[in-house]
Amino acid sequence: MLYLEDLQVGQRFVTATYELTAAAITTFAAQFDPQPFHLSEEAAATSLFGALAASGWHTAAVTMRLQVQSGPRICGGVIGASAEVRWPQPTRPGDVLHVESEVVSIIPSRSRPQRGMLRLRSETYNQRGEIVQSLTANLVVPRRVVP
Amino acid sequence: MLYLEDLQVGQRFVTATYELTAAAITTFAAQFDPQPFHLSEEAAATSLFGALAASGWHTAAVTMRLQVQSGPRICGGVIGASAEVRWPQPTRPGDVLHVESEVVSIIPSRSRPQRGMLRLRSETYNQRGEIVQSLTANLVVPRRVVP
Repeated sequence: MLYLEDLQVGQRFVTATYELTAAAITTFAAQFDPQPFHLSEEAAATSLFGALAASGWHTAAVTMRLQVQSGPRICGGVIGASAEVRWPQPTRPGDVLHVESEVVSIIPSRSRPQRGMLRLRSETYNQRGEIVQSLTANLVVPRRVVP
Repeated sequence: MLYLEDLQVGQRFVTATYELTAAAITTFAAQFDPQPFHLSEEAAATSLFGALAASGWHTAAVTMRLQVQSGPRICGGVIGASAEVRWPQPTRPGDVLHVESEVVSIIPSRSRPQRGMLRLRSETYNQRGEIVQSLTANLVVPRRVVP
């Protein structure tokens, strides 16, 4: 398990893959983003997306799943305080996603010496190597040795 | 339905409410964020959260649901290109959430005259009036009149 001291700027992580099905896209959308272009191939055809597209929040959720299951094994878990996210293009039925991350910065907390903030940039790729999501998250990471 | 011309800086929207149950929290977590503190009350007790807490991505997904169902009725749908999100505190079983949004800026696209970018800041509140998520999203909005 990784503590703050075990991480360094530039360190990289690559996850396993996850296949997004049409059923998963419409199930997520029905619960959390019930808009026609996320629910039906037919309705999506005449939308900005042109064809069925996953909700960006679904892409974010799948990215989190990949990070938790096969990303950096941070002690105490992957706990985000904040994040910036971009969706340069939508995810589609049949897309096989994986996540590649890089440590951007490591900032020990001044007010809470037992932990620090890890800034981790994560790109989510589809099977064609296109970026479908770019996420920079600020994660709470414990220190092994409290100064 | 709202076009870019119908929106103005400072305009506000308030959604309906949504109650987050323990079952919803653990079901979402099992699929997308399978970490002990999102899955079991017992495991959460000894974690940073102290008690069962929803995944931040679940809070984000519920926020999207509220925006789509009872937020601003944007022509063409609520389509985000990017966003910044903060989770100042976790959401808990039984929390009743609603979203209040405000238009931050409206920027017509120079390259695509038929649309523009709406910057919308949305706070998600629990039943005690505490902010559980702060989100600033950049949304694609069509123009009624193409110049």
